Amino acid sequence: MAASGLGEFGRIRRYFAPLAGPGGLGLADDAAVLACPPGRELVATVDAMVCGVHYLPEDPPDLVARKLLRVNLSDLAAMGATPRFYLLTTALPAALGDDWVARFAAGLAQDQTNYGVSLLGGDSVATPGPAVLSLTALGEVAAGAAIRRSGARPGDRIWVSGTIGDAALGLEVLRGGHGELSAPDRAMLAARFQLPEPRVALGPRLAGLAHAMADISDGLLADLGHICEASGVAATVTAAALPLSPAAERIAAAEPGLRARAAAAGDDYELLFAAPPEATPALAALAGELGLRLSEIGAIHAGAGVRLCDAAGREIAVARPGYTHF
Amino acid sequence: MAASGLGEFGRIRRYFAPLAGPGGLGLADDAAVLACPPGRELVATVDAMVCGVHYLPEDPPDLVARKLLRVNLSDLAAMGATPRFYLLTTALPAALGDDWVARFAAGLAQDQTNYGVSLLGGDSVATPGPAVLSLTALGEVAAGAAIRRSGARPGDRIWVSGTIGDAALGLEVLRGGHGELSAPDRAMLAARFQLPEPRVALGPRLAGLAHAMADISDGLLADLGHICEASGVAATVTAAALPLSPAAERIAAAEPGLRARAAAAGDDYELLFAAPPEATPALAALAGELGLRLSEIGAIHAGAGVRLCDAAGREIAVARPGYTHF
Repeated sequence: MAASGLGEFGRIRRYFAPLAGPGGLGLADDAAVLACPPGRELVATVDAMVCGVHYLPEDPPDLVARKLLRVNLSDLAAMGATPRFYLLTTALPAALGDDWVARFAAGLAQDQTNYGVSLLGGDSVATPGPAVLSLTALGEVAAGAAIRRSGARPGDRIWVSGTIGDAALGLEVLRGGHGELSAPDRAMLAARFQLPEPRVALGPRLAGLAHAMADISDGLLADLGHICEASGVAATVTAAALPLSPAAERIAAAEPGLRARAAAAGDDYELLFAAPPEATPALAALAGELGLRLSEIGAIHAGAGVRLCDAAGREIAVARPGYTHF
Repeated sequence: MAASGLGEFGRIRRYFAPLAGPGGLGLADDAAVLACPPGRELVATVDAMVCGVHYLPEDPPDLVARKLLRVNLSDLAAMGATPRFYLLTTALPAALGDDWVARFAAGLAQDQTNYGVSLLGGDSVATPGPAVLSLTALGEVAAGAAIRRSGARPGDRIWVSGTIGDAALGLEVLRGGHGELSAPDRAMLAARFQLPEPRVALGPRLAGLAHAMADISDGLLADLGHICEASGVAATVTAAALPLSPAAERIAAAEPGLRARAAAAGDDYELLFAAPPEATPALAALAGELGLRLSEIGAIHAGAGVRLCDAAGREIAVARPGYTHF
């Protein structure tokens, strides 16, 4: 009780009620009401983070909140949906005081502005264990336009946004690694781990262009594997085509296996999609318009499984294709 | 790793994917897509349960799952909404094996049939602490027909469904109390705590009859307080009018203060609503049609606050008006 002078209702009223949008009814009801515009469908997703598993106790609470929101917005973007609302569960240990909650809510407020979303409802509970945070995000998409994982076809090209591997390298930086890099390089990589940028502008623009899409959370090869399994196809990725950031390129110069490692690393939250060859000019134009790198990294073909190949087409062994919990 | 031979993806595939409805895409996508029928609005709510706080480690996993779902369906009912979908986060310690998850999923499957809902999406994560379960429920309601907490007006009568206080007495039974009762009485009270019955049939039928509504989770007086605060009104409840189950009446015969205790006790998940006097005949007919007791327990008037009174109109002091976490 000591850490929270405000109590559950007080915390909701002071920190979370101001985050509520019109549908959230100021969080003063049992549930929230949301209208779905005609011709639109809703898209829903949920992701959780556990202290000590997905983030560290000393991580800034505002960054924890923003990452929790952003990984969910990335899932919406991967369906081609535009984010609108979210619901939040916080299970917090008593030791986390009102100040932590205030900073957590401030992070949410900041990203609500960045992404045009608002809080629809929530639950705050106590736990004798580490904090567990769960967020359900709701977005909308034109009816029938959601981009599934299951639509990839032989002949499609495989594309990825941005650069990959940065988040895993950022975690290494946060653990004291990569002292050979400049301070700006290290800061960039750490930020990529702590504060991913969901591709919310890109996702909805890929309707009509991409046949299948996922975001990179488990790792490029693992998430491509999900697309292939859902679509009943195979994929080949060319290691040399994988887009690396300048900082990652500098590491790769000394570590030849880095591209393979980046292909297996999780948490980049870039969009990975399959599109027919005739979409290439439109994708190039879109990349220019959004100022976002889009890279063709391989091809879909008949069969099953995902292969990473060198320039000569020889398969490269990958140690750990993504990771799972438990 | 030892406890889960299946791993996260295996568990999702074996236990949770079969629970997915048409919108859930077999849980094989980043997010789920749901259509909202024309003229309807969506209603969303989230509630969490923590092992050791909201349930006990030895509680049957199927009952834990069903209670988690039902407390959320109760929130939807309290808005007058019909339940449709849910999303689920499970943060589980490694010690909980696949068997626990299998039984948890079996409970969900059973109540999906009972309530006509299906799983839309989820996240499974590991935690070094106790299990934390969070469920987001989605329902629908005719556009504009959702029943808020804020509509109570002076002159309204206060009504409650079913009986109150049973869940708190059931917890006492589970802790070894009330040995003076018969085995069926004890079983009934324990079931009321372990497996509440959300009033999903009643809630949507109160559209056009009730001015304001909430479900009883924090306690009748506390939840009535939320209605009064949101509506800017006061309420007086007559203790003698509070509906008790036959088992609770037997306890009340030896414990004169039981009605006051029941008025403050949480977790009954009955519906509490304010309706104008002219709605009384329709409410009586509805009670007969649904086979569900509806009791008039007091009145709304101008002012602020909630009072519990005896038959002579004298205020009864209540020790603990509901409870909060932290």
